[in-house]
Amino acid sequence: MKKLIECVPNFSEGRDTNKIEKIVDNFRGKKDLKLLDYQWDEDHNRSVVTVVGEPNALKEAVINAVGTAQELIDMTSHEGQHPRMGATDVIPFIPVKNTTVEECIELSKEVGKELWEKYQIPVFLYEKSASAAHRKNLSKIRKGQYEGMEEKIQEEKWRPDFGDTFNKKSGVTAVGARSPLVAFNVNLDTDNIDIANKISKQVRHISGGFRYCKAMGVELKDRGIVQVSMNMTDYTKTALYQTFEAIKMEAKRWGVNVVGSEIVGLVPMMALVNTAEYYLGIEDFQPEQILESHLME
Amino acid sequence: MKKLIECVPNFSEGRDTNKIEKIVDNFRGKKDLKLLDYQWDEDHNRSVVTVVGEPNALKEAVINAVGTAQELIDMTSHEGQHPRMGATDVIPFIPVKNTTVEECIELSKEVGKELWEKYQIPVFLYEKSASAAHRKNLSKIRKGQYEGMEEKIQEEKWRPDFGDTFNKKSGVTAVGARSPLVAFNVNLDTDNIDIANKISKQVRHISGGFRYCKAMGVELKDRGIVQVSMNMTDYTKTALYQTFEAIKMEAKRWGVNVVGSEIVGLVPMMALVNTAEYYLGIEDFQPEQILESHLME
Repeated sequence: MKKLIECVPNFSEGRDTNKIEKIVDNFRGKKDLKLLDYQWDEDHNRSVVTVVGEPNALKEAVINAVGTAQELIDMTSHEGQHPRMGATDVIPFIPVKNTTVEECIELSKEVGKELWEKYQIPVFLYEKSASAAHRKNLSKIRKGQYEGMEEKIQEEKWRPDFGDTFNKKSGVTAVGARSPLVAFNVNLDTDNIDIANKISKQVRHISGGFRYCKAMGVELKDRGIVQVSMNMTDYTKTALYQTFEAIKMEAKRWGVNVVGSEIVGLVPMMALVNTAEYYLGIEDFQPEQILESHLME
Repeated sequence: MKKLIECVPNFSEGRDTNKIEKIVDNFRGKKDLKLLDYQWDEDHNRSVVTVVGEPNALKEAVINAVGTAQELIDMTSHEGQHPRMGATDVIPFIPVKNTTVEECIELSKEVGKELWEKYQIPVFLYEKSASAAHRKNLSKIRKGQYEGMEEKIQEEKWRPDFGDTFNKKSGVTAVGARSPLVAFNVNLDTDNIDIANKISKQVRHISGGFRYCKAMGVELKDRGIVQVSMNMTDYTKTALYQTFEAIKMEAKRWGVNVVGSEIVGLVPMMALVNTAEYYLGIEDFQPEQILESHLME
């Protein structure tokens, strides 16, 4: 069984499509690698690539793409709305199939080491790969952005995990492992945003809810309703159905009903299979029983 | 997007593994084709191959396999417990990805035509491909078995769809399209088989229940409970959750509870995704949102 890891590298180029294509070319036509998507945003001046592959193929392609980004992007003249600190800003690795977060951590360290040795780009390990608690959160690492990095990486607390000298042209890159993230929103039959916010507080980790749930209230103005908008940061630990049932329960308190939900973007098959298993009470179900699990590369 | 069709041909050889391997070889190492499984049973003297592929690759391999079976199997000396009428007994085609039952019907007709023209094996189209209502059911077509076929195919009602002369060595083959079948069993907290049988009658098509559900009561003696054992013959029309909720409702009448369920063998991903969609009330969900849908060959 092949090991499959997803990688979603972010590059600080969202305007020159020639340059974007050249960076993305590193992920095209490669064995054991599949380019799923790439998007760019002119205001953010940033592009995001989604690619899935075997660890070694992925590692090679990602390192080559960072090389191309180093050649084509000059951070000394970069401007854009999205916070950024490097030509290759961040490289997250996510386990997809027959792999664990631990293997992604290992991969992130190998890639980080090589980015410094090959290109002299300093690297922070972040999220699950972080070397200290205060370095888990990407926005904390990136605070001060490219312009503040030369100074920041001299602070004891913010020494990069690989490298010690600032790279003027390419800045600094964060590399790390994270769990697959599911954007899961639950709709309520009220236009009262306070209720959505109150329920969000009950289910989200930071204010006492589920460990792997981030949540906030959002208005859907065209529909005249509100929703509890969630990021499920590890569906293998906090399942979609857990937050869904909790929101139903909390909604009752306000005389409000759950009227539906939505999943935004990609979702791992097992997040939904796990939900079906719960509601049907399926015993001893094995992922190998899913026909499509045999059809994946 | 590739079209993927599943095929589960049954061959009348379950003892001579050399012969079985030679038949199965037709599905190995072929482009756009993947052998998922093959099993044989000595008592039944029969083997079952599970293969998935693009329509053209599948068609070619299946026709070649029938040719090998024709060479290696002599029906005049075949005996086994399982009913059978040909060296290649039955060839079902099942839509898996980016295909419809209609395309599988078309494929079954092309294969049937070629089996007669190339090998002079008479062919019945069955299930969704059947040319008349009385020819849908395989067991009705096969009634009388190999030994009775020479006579049977002379009857007006049982003229083959392709061919008109009996093939002594290879017998007769059924080819047809069918929907993916899910074996779904729901467990009850009673040892009373009558209750499982009564509930089965309420949910199964033949006695007034759901159109694409076959059901019967089964005792799980080691656990001291009974189950409603179902074959879901088209989960896209009759969903798993529909029968599950109906069984819960019927169970109440007998003071009995549903305590779990099981899925036996393979299940198409969408049968479970569909269930998760129902219970979470997910709006506007697209199969392309499933990460793994992009990883299939």
